[in-house]
Amino acid sequence: MEKKYVYMFNEGNSTMRNILGGKGANLAEMTNLDLPVPQGFTISTEACTNYYENSQKISSDIKKQIEDSLKKLEQIAKKKFGDDENPLLVSVRSGARASMPGMMDTILNLGLNDSSVEGLAEATKNPRFAYDSYRRFIQMYSDVVENVPKHGFESIIDKIKTKKEIKLDTELNVEDLKEIISTFKEHFKFQKNFDFPQDSAEQIFKAVEAVFRSWENPRAIVYRRMNDIPSSWGTAVNVQMMVFGNMGDTSGTGVAFTRDPSTGENKLYGEYLINAQGEDVVAGVRTPEPISTLEKIMPEIYKQFVEISQKLEKHYRDMQDMEFTIENGKLYMLQTRNGKRTAQAAINIAVDLFDEKMLSKNEAILKVEPKQLDSLLHPTFVPSVLKKSKVLTKGLPASPGAACGKVYFTAEDCVEVAKSKSEKVILVRLETSPEDIEGMVSSEGILTVRGGMTSHAAVVARGMGKCCVAGCGDIKINYEKKEFSVNDIIIKEGDVISIDGGTGCVFVGSIEMQNPEFTGNFGIFMSWADGIRVTKIRTNADTPEDAKIARDFGAEGIGLCRTEHMFFDKERISHFRKMIVSKGLKQRKDALNEIFPMQRSDFEGVFKAMQDFPVTIRLLDPPLHEFLPHSDEGIKKLADDMKLSFDELKITIESLKEFNPMLGHRGCRLAITYPEIVIMQTRAIIEAAINVSKENIKVNPEIMVPLVGDVNELKYIKSIIAETADEIIEKSGIKIEYTVGTMIETPRAAILADEIAKEADFFSFGTNDLTQMAYGFSRDDASKFLEDYYVKKIFEVDPFARLDQKGVGSFMKIASDLGRKTKPDIKIGICGEHGGDPQSIEFCYKLNLNYVSCSPFRVPVARLAAAQAKIKSELE
Amino acid sequence: MEKKYVYMFNEGNSTMRNILGGKGANLAEMTNLDLPVPQGFTISTEACTNYYENSQKISSDIKKQIEDSLKKLEQIAKKKFGDDENPLLVSVRSGARASMPGMMDTILNLGLNDSSVEGLAEATKNPRFAYDSYRRFIQMYSDVVENVPKHGFESIIDKIKTKKEIKLDTELNVEDLKEIISTFKEHFKFQKNFDFPQDSAEQIFKAVEAVFRSWENPRAIVYRRMNDIPSSWGTAVNVQMMVFGNMGDTSGTGVAFTRDPSTGENKLYGEYLINAQGEDVVAGVRTPEPISTLEKIMPEIYKQFVEISQKLEKHYRDMQDMEFTIENGKLYMLQTRNGKRTAQAAINIAVDLFDEKMLSKNEAILKVEPKQLDSLLHPTFVPSVLKKSKVLTKGLPASPGAACGKVYFTAEDCVEVAKSKSEKVILVRLETSPEDIEGMVSSEGILTVRGGMTSHAAVVARGMGKCCVAGCGDIKINYEKKEFSVNDIIIKEGDVISIDGGTGCVFVGSIEMQNPEFTGNFGIFMSWADGIRVTKIRTNADTPEDAKIARDFGAEGIGLCRTEHMFFDKERISHFRKMIVSKGLKQRKDALNEIFPMQRSDFEGVFKAMQDFPVTIRLLDPPLHEFLPHSDEGIKKLADDMKLSFDELKITIESLKEFNPMLGHRGCRLAITYPEIVIMQTRAIIEAAINVSKENIKVNPEIMVPLVGDVNELKYIKSIIAETADEIIEKSGIKIEYTVGTMIETPRAAILADEIAKEADFFSFGTNDLTQMAYGFSRDDASKFLEDYYVKKIFEVDPFARLDQKGVGSFMKIASDLGRKTKPDIKIGICGEHGGDPQSIEFCYKLNLNYVSCSPFRVPVARLAAAQAKIKSELE
Repeated sequence: MEKKYVYMFNEGNSTMRNILGGKGANLAEMTNLDLPVPQGFTISTEACTNYYENSQKISSDIKKQIEDSLKKLEQIAKKKFGDDENPLLVSVRSGARASMPGMMDTILNLGLNDSSVEGLAEATKNPRFAYDSYRRFIQMYSDVVENVPKHGFESIIDKIKTKKEIKLDTELNVEDLKEIISTFKEHFKFQKNFDFPQDSAEQIFKAVEAVFRSWENPRAIVYRRMNDIPSSWGTAVNVQMMVFGNMGDTSGTGVAFTRDPSTGENKLYGEYLINAQGEDVVAGVRTPEPISTLEKIMPEIYKQFVEISQKLEKHYRDMQDMEFTIENGKLYMLQTRNGKRTAQAAINIAVDLFDEKMLSKNEAILKVEPKQLDSLLHPTFVPSVLKKSKVLTKGLPASPGAACGKVYFTAEDCVEVAKSKSEKVILVRLETSPEDIEGMVSSEGILTVRGGMTSHAAVVARGMGKCCVAGCGDIKINYEKKEFSVNDIIIKEGDVISIDGGTGCVFVGSIEMQNPEFTGNFGIFMSWADGIRVTKIRTNADTPEDAKIARDFGAEGIGLCRTEHMFFDKERISHFRKMIVSKGLKQRKDALNEIFPMQRSDFEGVFKAMQDFPVTIRLLDPPLHEFLPHSDEGIKKLADDMKLSFDELKITIESLKEFNPMLGHRGCRLAITYPEIVIMQTRAIIEAAINVSKENIKVNPEIMVPLVGDVNELKYIKSIIAETADEIIEKSGIKIEYTVGTMIETPRAAILADEIAKEADFFSFGTNDLTQMAYGFSRDDASKFLEDYYVKKIFEVDPFARLDQKGVGSFMKIASDLGRKTKPDIKIGICGEHGGDPQSIEFCYKLNLNYVSCSPFRVPVARLAAAQAKIKSELE
Repeated sequence: MEKKYVYMFNEGNSTMRNILGGKGANLAEMTNLDLPVPQGFTISTEACTNYYENSQKISSDIKKQIEDSLKKLEQIAKKKFGDDENPLLVSVRSGARASMPGMMDTILNLGLNDSSVEGLAEATKNPRFAYDSYRRFIQMYSDVVENVPKHGFESIIDKIKTKKEIKLDTELNVEDLKEIISTFKEHFKFQKNFDFPQDSAEQIFKAVEAVFRSWENPRAIVYRRMNDIPSSWGTAVNVQMMVFGNMGDTSGTGVAFTRDPSTGENKLYGEYLINAQGEDVVAGVRTPEPISTLEKIMPEIYKQFVEISQKLEKHYRDMQDMEFTIENGKLYMLQTRNGKRTAQAAINIAVDLFDEKMLSKNEAILKVEPKQLDSLLHPTFVPSVLKKSKVLTKGLPASPGAACGKVYFTAEDCVEVAKSKSEKVILVRLETSPEDIEGMVSSEGILTVRGGMTSHAAVVARGMGKCCVAGCGDIKINYEKKEFSVNDIIIKEGDVISIDGGTGCVFVGSIEMQNPEFTGNFGIFMSWADGIRVTKIRTNADTPEDAKIARDFGAEGIGLCRTEHMFFDKERISHFRKMIVSKGLKQRKDALNEIFPMQRSDFEGVFKAMQDFPVTIRLLDPPLHEFLPHSDEGIKKLADDMKLSFDELKITIESLKEFNPMLGHRGCRLAITYPEIVIMQTRAIIEAAINVSKENIKVNPEIMVPLVGDVNELKYIKSIIAETADEIIEKSGIKIEYTVGTMIETPRAAILADEIAKEADFFSFGTNDLTQMAYGFSRDDASKFLEDYYVKKIFEVDPFARLDQKGVGSFMKIASDLGRKTKPDIKIGICGEHGGDPQSIEFCYKLNLNYVSCSPFRVPVARLAAAQAKIKSELE
C-alpha cells in the first residue's frame, strides 16, 4: 500500500501531532468534537521530509494524494476549485509539531484567477470583496511563492491612490481594484518573465512547496535553534476552506484565550475586529476590541464561542489559545492550541487546574516550562521609587517584568550594542515582525507603538520572558532622526528609558529595581516540585552574597565555589600577582601568606551563608597569566610594588604566556608545580571550617581538585591536602569532616574514572571543559565558526548551552558507571553551566546524579526541571 | 608461611629475573651451572617494594631473613662476618630486572672494622691490602650510606701524600694507610656527629637500605624514563663474598663479551687489568689490555675462561657480557648477562645465531631492539671526502656512526645548546660518568680522553645508538679555558669537529655525510621481519623526496601527506597568504586558483614516487594564522603585494588570532567555512591522479578529513569532495577510484565512531591531537610542567612520545570497535608520531590496525616492531 501523506481533517486527531503538526492535529480534533471548523486537509510533516530528500520536489505520489483530497474537499464544500461560478478558495498554512508563530509562510484566498474572481463576486454579491481578495492573493502569492518583493505592489497601490486622490485602502472601488490587479499582473510579468499563474492546481502545488521551503528560511532556523526544535521534524501544510471575516459588519475575526495569559486569571480573554481578516488582528495594524464587548454586539455568537472555549479547555485540560472568524453571522473555529502564557500565569493556571481537579499534581508540574521561571526571579521596580517616577506614557502591559536600557530603533542596532558593548538596550519599534527576533533576544525589553496584547511583539516577548509594552500610540517614532517623541519630550537613540510590562508604563531614565518574592502560588508550586524531585540542587557561588541569594532561591549547597574569583578584588589582586611572579619558593610563600587570611575569611563567610549545607570548594584553577597586568602601565605599577625592574617583570610575564592557555598550566597542574598553593588553600578552608563550626554550624567542606587527567595527580594532591588538614584538625581538637574529590572534565578522566574513584570521595562534571576537549574547540574561538555550522545545519544547537548528550553525555555516562563500579556510593554532581539547563538536568537525572549545581538565578529553574525529569521518566 | 624475601644463590635461577633482578638471577644460574661464582644471596625486588611501602624501613621480617642468609654464607665461606681472625667480607650491589649500568650504588669490602681489618691482614699475610681495603670501604660507605661527600676523603689522602712527599696511591705504606683511616674516621665523626659504625650487622642493613634508596636517585629516574623501566619494579640487592683482583700479579679483573659488541664478530672480545679491582676497569682510569693477551700471561686461566664463555653463550643462547676476577691465580665469575651491542652487531649476531642453529627465525627477530635500527639508518661520512680529510687524532672506536657538531665540555652546556639553540653538539670529556647521561642524550656524539671500549661512555653510547670515540689520550682538555688541544692545535668551545665512531678518528670541521645502504645481513634480517609481520607500514611524507626515501626504507604507502606543508615554500606562501586574508569569496577563489596548479603538480610528484602504493592526503589542517607574517615588515610586504593598506591588513591578521589555536578554527572547520578550499584541493588531487594514471601508475587517492568531531561535518565535506571529484572523473573518461575517510583525533569522534563510520571509508588515528585533548594539555605548553610530573612520579613517560595505552589507547579501542561494528572492513591506521614507536606499534597490532604510518627514518624500526608484535602475541 502507498504511504499516506495527506489526511482529511476528519481522518486525524490530536495524538497525530508529529505527523500533522500542531495546527493540523488540533483542526482534526476540533472536527471530531463537532465544532464548526472550515474543512480541509493536512499534508503531513513526512511529506516535507520527503520533499527535502527528493531534491526539493513534491513527488508525483504526494501530488496525487493532494489532488484526491482537493476533490473530497470540493464535495464537502459543494464548491469547485478554480470554478468560474462558485469557486472554492483555500488558505495554505504551515503547521509544525511545535508552534512557531509567524516564522513560516501563509497564503490566503488561493483558487482565485481572472475568471473565478468573477464567480466569487457573483456568488457573494460583493464584487469589491472579491476583487480586493484577488489583489491580496496576487500580492501574497507573488511574495511567498515567486519571491517578488511586496514593496513593488505597495507602490502600485500608492500610485493609484494618489491618482484618485484618496487616502485609505477602503476607499478604493471595484474599478480601482481592477486597475490595480491588472497593473499587478503586469508588474509580475515584468519581474518574472511569465504570466501570473491562472491554473489553480499549479497555484496550490507552488504554494505547498513555498511553505515547505519556508521551513528552512533564516528566521525559522534562528527560532528553531532558540527553541530546540530539530530541523528534521519538518512542517506540515494545512489546506483549508477560506472563511471571511471581512464581508461586512456581521463578519469579524479574533483571537482569545480561555484564561488570562498574563496573570492566569480564569476568565475568557481576547480581542476581535469587526469586518477584518485574521492578519489584521495579529499584525497589530488596527487596535482591536476586548472579547467581552462581543457579547453586546453578537450575543448568540458570543454565547456559542464561550461554550466552545469551555469545551476545548476541558477537552485539552489546559488553557487554550483560539482563533475564530465570523462570516456573515456564522462562527468558525480556525485554530486552537495550548496557549502561551507568562510564567506567573503558567504557575497560577497550573495550581488552579489542580484545584479544579482537572489535573493531578504531576500533570500540573509539567504545565510550567522551567525556563520560564527565570522571568519571575528577576528584579522589578522598587514600588516606592516607582511611585515617585513620572510616567512618560502608557501602552498595553503586553509581557510582565521591568527593564531599563538605552533606546535603539532597529533589531540590528540592539544586537550590535548589546553584544559588542555589553550594554542594556530596549528595542523601540512601530511594530515588530519575525525579522526582529534576534534584536528582541538581545534587548532587556520591547516597546511598540502599534499592536495589541496578541501582536507579534507581545506574543514573542511573553515566550521569551521579556518585558514588553505594546500599542503605545502616543509615541511618534522618527526612524531617520533616530528618536521618538511623546508630546514635546524627545528621546534620542542611546537615551535611557524604563518600561514596566506589568502596567504598560514608560519612564524617562532608569528606575531602581528590587528582587522578587516567592510566596503564594509560586511557593505552593515549587513545594510540589521539591516534594517530587530526588536530584539535589546546588549552586555555583563564590561569595557569601551569591550564596545567600542562592539559598533564598532554594539551593541545597554549593556545588562549585571558585577560589580564584576571590582574588579579582582590587585590593587582593596585587598580592595574588606577587604570588604569581615570585621568584622561588620563599617569595611565593610570603605572598601566599598575605593572601591566606583573606581566603580564610572568605570561606568563613561562605560557610556561614550556607549554614549546614555542603560546600564544594575548588582549588585554584585558571592559567595564572589571566591574573597578570598586560598593559605597560599595569606592569610598571606591579614592578614598583614588588621592587622589581620593569623589564625584569615584563620578561616574567611574557614567559608565563601560553600558546593554548586552555590546554596549559592550569588546574591541578598548578597544584603539582606549586604545592604551597594547595597548602595555603587547604589551611584557609580547614581553619575557616573550624572557626565557623565553633558557632554551632555544621561544616563539612568538600575540597575539589580541578582538571585531573590521571589518578596520580589526584593522589599526590590529596596527600598534601590530607597532611595539611589533618595536622590543623588534630591541633584544634575540633572534629571537622572533610572530603576530597575531583572534577571530571578531561576525556581521559572520564574514561579512567574507575581508577580515579579510588582516590576520590566525589566527582563533579565540569561539562564546559569536557565539551571543549571532547569536540576539540574552545568556547572563545568556536564562536567564529559555529555560525557557519548552524547555517549549514551541521549543528542545530550550541553545545555549550545545551549538553551534547550523545558525545559529552557518553563521557558522563561512562564516568558515572566506572566511578560507581569502584565506589558504589560515590557522590556525583555537575557544576558546568549545563547544570541550569532543563534538558541537561533531565539527562543528569537519568544518569542518577546526586545533584546539579547552577548559578543562583537558575536554582528555581533547576528545581522544577528536576521534578519534571522524574515525572517524565515515570511516564516513559 | 612467611613470604620469602631473601634467596641464596643456589635457591634461584635465570627465570626468576623479576624477583631476583638480572644480576641475581644470573648469579644463581651460574651457580647452578657449577661455575666458579663467589657465593652469596639476593634480597628480592619485592623487599625493595616492601621497603618503600613500609615508609622506607626494612621490615624486621626481612632483617631476620638477611641475618639467616648471612649465617648460611658464613658456613659456605667458612669465615665469620666481622670476625677478628678471618673475616667474611662482602659486596653489596644493586641489580634491577633491567640492566641499569652505573645508575645505582655499590659498596665493596663490607665487614671491615677496626679489629676485623687486623684479622684480614693476618689471614691474607698482606697488611697493606687489608688497610687499603678498609680505607676504601670507609670512603665508599660514607659516601653511599651516609652521604658524606667523597672529596673530603680525597683531600685527606692528598694532604698525607704531600706530607710524605709521594705521588701515587700505591706508594702509601701500611703506616700511611693507618693514619689515613684514623683521619677518615675523625672526618666522619665531624661530619655526622657519631662514630663510623663498627658493627658489621649495622653496616649491612644500612648498606642495603642505601641501595634501595638509590633506586630513586635522580639519575636512575632519568635513566628509567629513557628506557621505559617502571619505578614500581624496584631493585634487588646482591650480597656476595668479596674476591680480590688487587692482591698482586697473580690477581686481576676484567670484562669480556662472547662476540664483538661493535660488529658482532664471533670472537671473544674484552679487556682486563692485572692487580686491579673491577671499578678500575669500568671507570676507565687505567687503560686495560685486550683479553687475547691473557692467553700468554695465564694460559690455564684463559683456557678456563674461554670454556666458561662458550658454555654461557650456549646456555643463554645469546651473546654474553661477563665480569671476572682472578684472585691469587683462581678465576671467579662475578656476572654474566646478555651483552649490549650496536645495531650492526645486533643484526649480525641475530643472523649468525640463526645460521648456527642456536635460534629460530622468530627468536632471532626478537634479538634486535627496533629502536636500535635507527643508528643504522643515519648518514655516515662520504668515503671519498673522508679520505681527503686530515685526521686530528685517533681514539678507540667505541660506538659506531658519524657525527659533526660544536664542541662543549659539560653535559649541562650540551643540553642547553642543543635544546635552546637546536644546534648539533659533541660532548668532549676526560671521561663520562652517570651524571652526564642527559648531556649524552642531547649530543650527536661523545669524545673522551680516558677509558676503553667498556668504559662508561662507550657502553652508554652504544646503548643509545650514538657515535662515540673513547680513550683518545692525545687530547689535553682545559676545562677552565673551555678548550682542548692536540699537540699545538687548539679547539675552543663552539668549534666544529667530526668524529667517526667506526674508526675512532677525530677531524677538525665538518665532513660531508651520506646515507647508509641496506644490504647483507640487514637485508636478510629485514626480509625475515617483513615475512612475519601483518601490519602494513606507511610513512608520513609531504614531498616526492620524502616519499622516495620512505619507499627505499620499505614504506608501503603514505599514511599522511600534509597538504599545508606544501605551502611553506617561499614562492608559494605569498599566494597562500593572499588566500587567507582575502575579503570575500571572489578574492579567495582567485588566490586558490593561483595555488591550484602547484598543488596538482605536488600531488603528481607524490603519486609517482609512491608508484602503486596508496596515498592518504589530508585536507588543509592548521590554523590559518600560522601562515601569516607577524612582523610589521612581513605585513607591509604582503600588503603591498595585495594592494591593501598596512593598517587594513594588520587588522585582518589581528582578527585571525585565536585564544587557543589548537582548539580553534582549523581542521575540517576550515573546510566548512571555506568549502572553496576543499574544492580546489579535491581538484588538484583528482586531476593529478588522472594525469599520473595516464603513465600506467595505479593511483587510488585516499582523501582524509581532519579533526572531525561530528558525523555531519564529514558528511558535508564528503559531499563537496564527491561532487567535485565525480565531475572531473566523468569528464576525463578515466576511471579513478578514490576514497574519503577521516582522522580520529577528537575524543568525541572516538566515542561516536560508529556514526562516523557510516560516512568514512577509512579511519586514521591522529594520536597527537587525541593525546592533547584526552589529557587536556597541549604539547607546546605541557613541557613547562611535565618535568615536575616526572620528578614527582606522577608520569613516568612522555605521553607524546609513548602512546598512553590506558587512556588514549582506550579511545582507540573504542573507536576501532565501534567503527568496525558499522563497517566490518573499514581500513584503520595511525598517523600520529606514535606510529614510529615500537611499544605503540605493538598496541596497534593488538587493535588489529591495518597499518601504522611514521616518518621515513622510522619505517625500518616500524617494520621490525610490527614483526616482533606478532611474534610476542603468539608467545602470550
